[in-house]
Amino acid sequence: MVERLRGFRDFYPEEQEIRRVIFNTMKERCRSFGFKEIDGPSIESMQLYSHKVGQQITTQMFSFKDKGGRDVTLIPEFTPSLSRMVSTRKDLVKPLKWYSLTKFWRYEEPQSGRFREFYQLNADILGSESYLADAEVTTLAADILTSLGISSKVKLRVNSRILMDSIIERFLENKKEESYFILDGWNKYTDEERMKVAEEKKLDIDTLKLIASGNILKEYSSPELDKLKMTIELIKNYGGIDVELDLRVVRGLAYYTGFVFEAWDKEEKMRAILGGGRYDNIISQLGGDRTPAVGFAIGDAVIENIMKHEGLWVRKQDRSVFIATIDKKGIDYSILVAKKLRDLGVNSDKNVVERGISKQLEYAAKMGYERVIILGENEFVRKSVVVKNLTSGKQEEIKIDHLEDIVN
Amino acid sequence: MVERLRGFRDFYPEEQEIRRVIFNTMKERCRSFGFKEIDGPSIESMQLYSHKVGQQITTQMFSFKDKGGRDVTLIPEFTPSLSRMVSTRKDLVKPLKWYSLTKFWRYEEPQSGRFREFYQLNADILGSESYLADAEVTTLAADILTSLGISSKVKLRVNSRILMDSIIERFLENKKEESYFILDGWNKYTDEERMKVAEEKKLDIDTLKLIASGNILKEYSSPELDKLKMTIELIKNYGGIDVELDLRVVRGLAYYTGFVFEAWDKEEKMRAILGGGRYDNIISQLGGDRTPAVGFAIGDAVIENIMKHEGLWVRKQDRSVFIATIDKKGIDYSILVAKKLRDLGVNSDKNVVERGISKQLEYAAKMGYERVIILGENEFVRKSVVVKNLTSGKQEEIKIDHLEDIVN
Repeated sequence: MVERLRGFRDFYPEEQEIRRVIFNTMKERCRSFGFKEIDGPSIESMQLYSHKVGQQITTQMFSFKDKGGRDVTLIPEFTPSLSRMVSTRKDLVKPLKWYSLTKFWRYEEPQSGRFREFYQLNADILGSESYLADAEVTTLAADILTSLGISSKVKLRVNSRILMDSIIERFLENKKEESYFILDGWNKYTDEERMKVAEEKKLDIDTLKLIASGNILKEYSSPELDKLKMTIELIKNYGGIDVELDLRVVRGLAYYTGFVFEAWDKEEKMRAILGGGRYDNIISQLGGDRTPAVGFAIGDAVIENIMKHEGLWVRKQDRSVFIATIDKKGIDYSILVAKKLRDLGVNSDKNVVERGISKQLEYAAKMGYERVIILGENEFVRKSVVVKNLTSGKQEEIKIDHLEDIVN
Repeated sequence: MVERLRGFRDFYPEEQEIRRVIFNTMKERCRSFGFKEIDGPSIESMQLYSHKVGQQITTQMFSFKDKGGRDVTLIPEFTPSLSRMVSTRKDLVKPLKWYSLTKFWRYEEPQSGRFREFYQLNADILGSESYLADAEVTTLAADILTSLGISSKVKLRVNSRILMDSIIERFLENKKEESYFILDGWNKYTDEERMKVAEEKKLDIDTLKLIASGNILKEYSSPELDKLKMTIELIKNYGGIDVELDLRVVRGLAYYTGFVFEAWDKEEKMRAILGGGRYDNIISQLGGDRTPAVGFAIGDAVIENIMKHEGLWVRKQDRSVFIATIDKKGIDYSILVAKKLRDLGVNSDKNVVERGISKQLEYAAKMGYERVIILGENEFVRKSVVVKNLTSGKQEEIKIDHLEDIVN
């Protein structure tokens, strides 16, 4: 048998059931915040990424010529498609609050938490430059982390690129690129390494330390800092998650223009769990009208990692039963019984092999069912079902008119 | 702005909301029948399709060399991946009842109901050769059509390839390929064209007519026919949908080995809405252990077509509200109110632009919200909210402790 490609994943029922519930939870939380779902193509013209030429991402794309000779690519991220969708329709009432949960592809070296194919939730507000929008997307992110049960294990680190730019202008001779480089990697380095990098980049290490620790803000004030503090206050009002202003959070240099944020495990041992921020220039760079935008993305692999780490990656119990059939009358009768069970919200997995009752019970046990409903001519005549508990071995007869007893 | 590729689709919220509900319904119905969800890669090695060489599908694949020089392809159908998944894990307890709802890609000429990228639900039972499995997948298909509200507009046409083979052997000199060709296209031809094709293929037109009409069965009996009748009886027991034995339904020649079925609109004006059947040889052809299998597939585009035709492609009303905020106190207060609303299952779209109340009401109306919750210092102090109905213009004050009144 031909093998699966490297960096790709199969999801068998036991894993997929967990994923399905988690994906649904994330989507449901987005909708509860008034975000609407969108969906788009998995393949786009390479031209849509021409502004990225020279950046690492273009070397990591699954790009190819289609049968019509077009240069196309599997999408490596959402923003270009989102920008296209926003710009194509002139009738859209803004601000838009949109989310999507779709697949992306990057030809990277697979490692823990990184695959060549992955799912990512994207949630964005388009058409508002207010701090209210910054707070709203961040609160949604906090709410999703809460609904996944991990909010107490993580913290939100927020910052502003405008604030950072003015700090770097004032205290670090406006050496933005160099300063962002060292602040972004701050935790990866030892004290010694930081000094070495600072020397190389000709940056004052003491100033950098004042920034990284946040102490520089003690003697600093600006309207942007006030706005950021208001944003943080709103997110904190939502509650249940730690929120910190952290000047080391800068994120992608060419992308973000204002508010930025990340979620990290409190020990900062893993990679960022999610990240986002304000990107007011991207849509116009892509050829659309200038549209202020703020959003975040969260990938499936990192969620799986942290939830497994916290022991939360477990299947929810459902109310499924297995229906075993003894004879032809039982088979006919099972259609009615299964229908009634479904109407009661009970999933029923009916026997589909011609085999005896003991083989059927054996199968049900192997499949992990706790209860089996047994049907034969006897039950049909008596308008009842026999419910056998596979754990206790006990069985009882329930009248078909009282089938709802099975739910309780 | 760079354009979307031909044959691909964007789904904006108004469409996506309908699609999301329909997709969820289909998946939920599968689970209610005891089918478990699986998911797999969108890209597979070309080798996985080597048994298809020479068939049309290989000319329609989005295939390319990846950055590692591998010949890969976007998946054009599900069975090869499914076969790989079944064969890789030796510990699986069979029969398996699996479904998936994922994207597929084919480089075909786009037309009504056909796109280069589409979603398809696949549901399969693997590891049972019983007619019970045939009936179970067909009943699931019937149940899905019922849940979409279209079961009264469609009919199921079922047949058996084993039955057909023996009829063709006995009555049409065993000319299988020729007979299947003309029966498969029966409805596309006029009476005259049929005669011409029959002549070309050296087939007796009167015998063909006896087969196409089903009249040949009047003087025919076989164990396979008896089994097929039992299958049909079980599907009919489920009820609510027409089921017919139809000897013109033969489906893909190289694929199916026994039971086959399709769903058609009653007037047979559109293409088949869904189709499936038994494919006992495919998994072993792909290099796995011999595994009897039966299943069906249903695409998103044809569902959309028939539901639009029946006027069923409409958004479900939801209980979303817009939250307008008058002042800073209202903004702070809105976090609590939104949280309480979400807990009540009401989606709340909060204002995220710094603008006056009339602009906010205007926006809410344009977005289609029927109700707006207005919050300011006044409401905060009085521990209440003002609910304004945008249709009637009426507004009322509700205490925050009685917010559940909004649900009713």
